[in-house]
Amino acid sequence: MKKVLFILGTAREGRRSERVASFVLSCARERGDMDVTFLDIADFAQTRTGGLIEDKLEKLKNALIVAEALVIIAPEYNHSYPGELKMFLDNADKEYVGKPVGFCAVSSGVIGGARMAEQLKLVMSAFQMFIINRVVHFPKVTELWDEAGELREPDAWKVRVNAMLDDLLKYSLC
Amino acid sequence: MKKVLFILGTAREGRRSERVASFVLSCARERGDMDVTFLDIADFAQTRTGGLIEDKLEKLKNALIVAEALVIIAPEYNHSYPGELKMFLDNADKEYVGKPVGFCAVSSGVIGGARMAEQLKLVMSAFQMFIINRVVHFPKVTELWDEAGELREPDAWKVRVNAMLDDLLKYSLC
Amino acid sequence: MKKVLFILGTAREGRRSERVASFVLSCARERGDMDVTFLDIADFAQTRTGGLIEDKLEKLKNALIVAEALVIIAPEYNHSYPGELKMFLDNADKEYVGKPVGFCAVSSGVIGGARMAEQLKLVMSAFQMFIINRVVHFPKVTELWDEAGELREPDAWKVRVNAMLDDLLKYSLC
Amino acid sequence: MKKVLFILGTAREGRRSERVASFVLSCARERGDMDVTFLDIADFAQTRTGGLIEDKLEKLKNALIVAEALVIIAPEYNHSYPGELKMFLDNADKEYVGKPVGFCAVSSGVIGGARMAEQLKLVMSAFQMFIINRVVHFPKVTELWDEAGELREPDAWKVRVNAMLDDLLKYSLC
Repeated sequence: MKKVLFILGTAREGRRSERVASFVLSCARERGDMDVTFLDIADFAQTRTGGLIEDKLEKLKNALIVAEALVIIAPEYNHSYPGELKMFLDNADKEYVGKPVGFCAVSSGVIGGARMAEQLKLVMSAFQMFIINRVVHFPKVTELWDEAGELREPDAWKVRVNAMLDDLLKYSLC
Repeated sequence: MKKVLFILGTAREGRRSERVASFVLSCARERGDMDVTFLDIADFAQTRTGGLIEDKLEKLKNALIVAEALVIIAPEYNHSYPGELKMFLDNADKEYVGKPVGFCAVSSGVIGGARMAEQLKLVMSAFQMFIINRVVHFPKVTELWDEAGELREPDAWKVRVNAMLDDLLKYSLC
Repeated sequence: MKKVLFILGTAREGRRSERVASFVLSCARERGDMDVTFLDIADFAQTRTGGLIEDKLEKLKNALIVAEALVIIAPEYNHSYPGELKMFLDNADKEYVGKPVGFCAVSSGVIGGARMAEQLKLVMSAFQMFIINRVVHFPKVTELWDEAGELREPDAWKVRVNAMLDDLLKYSLC
Repeated sequence: MKKVLFILGTAREGRRSERVASFVLSCARERGDMDVTFLDIADFAQTRTGGLIEDKLEKLKNALIVAEALVIIAPEYNHSYPGELKMFLDNADKEYVGKPVGFCAVSSGVIGGARMAEQLKLVMSAFQMFIINRVVHFPKVTELWDEAGELREPDAWKVRVNAMLDDLLKYSLC
């Protein structure tokens, strides 16, 4: 089974993407055809590029080395990605090469994080990853869950997430 | 041998990229490990998206279907690609899927077409191609050839082109 | 009154953006605080960068020289703009400098042309224009008009268009 | 005199951009037509978006409110900007609106940070700032200073920096 590492790409207090990540992870685990692991970038606090403490850096690199594919769940802040996500990603380099990466893009507005995804694609492409074009967009994220905390229209969302995950498995280098 | 289609991505009169394309093609042929074909977008004239005549469209699609990898040689105009290249590329869709694409970026200034390459990467990524990150940049293109029409420092350029072509072969889906 | 030039940025047969442009123009004229002019890039056919015939080029440049602000209405094709729009825009240079430009982005999908707008912003920025950030997005354009050809929810759309046009007038160099 | 705020946009240990920032500041002060202030983002440490402590946030916002124009000096890491710069910039919003922003882009390679600048332009454009297109590129930054710590060809660099600063003053809203 392909080892897929899911990364929650914001550490903002009150981040809405956490709920999205939980849902995406549950979809991935339910498939039964992926070995799912997860990293929350909030666990890798640093204040500047290159400022991650040694054991965290090792943990991060090991997770990337083991992973055969990546999925990044991240919100759009001012048309691009969270700064803490960029610092996190810049900790590695050759560990990414030749692996596919998919995206779940989150926004409070109607665009669904598409502008963030485009900028992030270029960063991950700089690591010579293979970009899965089918981004799952979660627009108006505050309205996606009902007051009881249940995702509205879960089946439709599951179809979207699985289509991206299908592509992730399909477009991998042997 | 991998079938690689090289595309000259400008039809501007006096285009400097033609000389670059000739050099890149000669490098590719000299390697002996690629089946090299070539399209000049000047042969696919159209005035609007979707406006290519039927037999040209068929010729273009057939060339893309046969190709297992692409290399686009194109200049930067105003921080992006030539419009005729975008019209040309928009003629196909599923013919691109799952194949790697490399870039040779040309400019008269010092940046070497890097901004063009970034925008073009996102377009080719939208076709679910696999982006070869190692772009060959040809800055100050008017100064690269001497008055006798000989490329200055051909060996250094050959190394750069071949490094990109190596990656093109290396990062292909099986 | 500020002279504002509206540009319909696709010449594709069956283009949906034509209806959007008509609506945007009617909003602009109804305001009464703009001197509205319009160019359809279908009237400026060219097959390659720099290939516009002389009298068309003069007409285009004159329109840009007179204009004090621009609005571009254009669809997204494969995450970017139509090639014919890039060829059209590349015909001028210093005529753009120092003027504001707004965007109406059109798509058949849910994203509403946001990726196209981001790439186009960088091109117009290369001309040293001033980018109006408030893009009017027209997603799912085929569903926006009813069977009788009437725009659904015209008041809501008028508010969006006018908010962009307000910014266009507000953020102009004196 | 126009109040111009210069921002050093990396906090990486060993950052090369610090030397660039010093030089750019000296150019700006020497002109005598700007009221120059400076912020080093290393003084605004935060580990996540929204995580800046209250008095630092106030200091940052006050500096932005007072500033009439911005200049950001920043390196390119993996084709984009440092994460700590994005976190820093995301602390404000309406404080940026309507002001011009110029860029000095730094890289160890030959491209000179052009890809970083393009991504950063879109972020600053999202704040409705006015983008000064003339970026000053500092490629191969490790070779720009000699062993005695003197900038090589200082006059040529001064011309480039001043051309950007001229544009910054020229293209400001009244």
